[in-house]
Amino acid sequence: MRDLLLRACRRQSVERTPIWLMRQAGRSLPEYRALRERTAFVTLCRTPELAAQVTLQPVERLGVDAAILFSDILVPAECLGLRVDFNPGPVVETPLRTTAEIARLHARPAEEAVPFVFETVRIVRRALDGGVPLIGFAGAPFTLCAYLVEGRGSRGFSAFKTLLYGDPAAAHRLLDVVTTVTLDYLEAQVRAGAQAVQLFDTWAGLLDRGTFREFALRYARRVLERLAGSGVPRIYFALNGAHLLEDIGDCGADAVGVDWRVDIREASRRLGGRFALQGNLDPAQLLAPPALIEQRAVELLVRGRELPGHVFNLGHGVLPETPVEHVQSLVEAVKRHGAR
Amino acid sequence: MRDLLLRACRRQSVERTPIWLMRQAGRSLPEYRALRERTAFVTLCRTPELAAQVTLQPVERLGVDAAILFSDILVPAECLGLRVDFNPGPVVETPLRTTAEIARLHARPAEEAVPFVFETVRIVRRALDGGVPLIGFAGAPFTLCAYLVEGRGSRGFSAFKTLLYGDPAAAHRLLDVVTTVTLDYLEAQVRAGAQAVQLFDTWAGLLDRGTFREFALRYARRVLERLAGSGVPRIYFALNGAHLLEDIGDCGADAVGVDWRVDIREASRRLGGRFALQGNLDPAQLLAPPALIEQRAVELLVRGRELPGHVFNLGHGVLPETPVEHVQSLVEAVKRHGAR
Repeated sequence: MRDLLLRACRRQSVERTPIWLMRQAGRSLPEYRALRERTAFVTLCRTPELAAQVTLQPVERLGVDAAILFSDILVPAECLGLRVDFNPGPVVETPLRTTAEIARLHARPAEEAVPFVFETVRIVRRALDGGVPLIGFAGAPFTLCAYLVEGRGSRGFSAFKTLLYGDPAAAHRLLDVVTTVTLDYLEAQVRAGAQAVQLFDTWAGLLDRGTFREFALRYARRVLERLAGSGVPRIYFALNGAHLLEDIGDCGADAVGVDWRVDIREASRRLGGRFALQGNLDPAQLLAPPALIEQRAVELLVRGRELPGHVFNLGHGVLPETPVEHVQSLVEAVKRHGAR
Repeated sequence: MRDLLLRACRRQSVERTPIWLMRQAGRSLPEYRALRERTAFVTLCRTPELAAQVTLQPVERLGVDAAILFSDILVPAECLGLRVDFNPGPVVETPLRTTAEIARLHARPAEEAVPFVFETVRIVRRALDGGVPLIGFAGAPFTLCAYLVEGRGSRGFSAFKTLLYGDPAAAHRLLDVVTTVTLDYLEAQVRAGAQAVQLFDTWAGLLDRGTFREFALRYARRVLERLAGSGVPRIYFALNGAHLLEDIGDCGADAVGVDWRVDIREASRRLGGRFALQGNLDPAQLLAPPALIEQRAVELLVRGRELPGHVFNLGHGVLPETPVEHVQSLVEAVKRHGAR
């Protein structure tokens, strides 16, 4: 039962649908909030013992079928010598705006630039001791570049789009460097012990299909295809990507995450039936009473049985205000009703 | 040529594709910024002479083919006795959170509660004096309710979704009252002289199809169908609604706005070919150099010729940082290349 997640991602048979939750480590857990009261977020990310502790909290509290590395999507920016601050969301101190700034970028090996990440992976693997698998992760090149140019999360990412639309050559140069960094960063996670990887393309849903193919998909695919040799299952997740599914079919992953906006069976058809699907309960459903949560979980499990493979998850991260009992009742419902 | 917009919405023949731009009145115009330097936003909305002046600014400066009433989407909240503040975005002072608060709601006639809106419409119509038409607008019931419950714009609208998922009966009661207000508000705009109306469903794109049909579409359709008798063209716009197009086909409008994420011809097919389409250039395209803007405009005009009707617009509002010369070059490009 320990490798349910890995088998489901590979579309192999499983005794039960596995479940893990995006942002399962975080503010919905009282033990995380207690730790954050005395420790800055950036310290949690950069201190292997603490990051490992946070990574393991949801495994212990919730009994999910996988751990996912606790870190921030912007950490690999340090491989490019860019400083990231948290205020409270991630902020790039000097966002990249000019072609000269982009041309000057130079990538250092991740193991040299951010060794604490891989040490975290090693500690977590030792602690899990053959238990549930550990998922490594990175932002997809498009999404990481969106932050590097914009400086922070944004509704429309207009500075980044100005670059894409107004100077596509510079945008491609930036995406190329960031793709190299992302690949190196994920390969180093796998070497340290990550048993699956997820590539988060949080901002790809801002794009139309043509722009997505040109600036997001081709770079995500490069990362995912080159990771094929590592032997670990690779998950690609584009938030708000319902209009991109036919294109996402070319992403080269084993499994595709989808958000709650689309029926997971329709998503599978539009992806060509070639992927395991991960998702896709609306995180806001966890704010409703537990009896309703169980009902929604059962409905999704039933739909999931029609797929080549199903990893139960939310359509986006656990909302910070979610009562932990509600998260627990979801995991219990999936375990109770998820037998295949 | 003055009624190009009205004819395009009705899928009648036009000599040229008409253009107007969501948020055409606003920070991209120097004359608007000058006015705002000495006047609070809320004062602009509530003072008919000023709101009319702002409504007319883009007609004069840009030569667009329609004016759209300058107001805020939350103004009709006042018909329910709810106070709205601007800080800087709209904020509902006491958001609706309990069923008791919802049960107590009582709708006053819009002409009594917000007479300044209709006075603005009358002033604008007199000033336009048979020129381009004036579009009235309102938020769709779902979107207005999202603000009333959440209190302000939000990434995930979790308080509102808690109501939808956890207490659907209370949500329907609220949507029902707000639908009555919205219809009354738009009918009063038409009586005052609005020659078309647009219903903005800015947050509908947060929903999956089933939830959209139950909580958003049925109320938008009620408003749009009851406005059919008024004789003015009715436009429905759901931002980020690419995954909802088959459902939006039941909205009962004359024209459907789509954002940039979807090819406007694909949108038309998925809507059943029964609507004029409005859109759908990415507003961030206006941050690129004018030569590129012209190229994108021509491409979209060509696609638009395959539609039953096409109103050129952006896929969302003009970004505040857009240079006014770029907006002008878009309007000029559409006028130069838009002949049918």
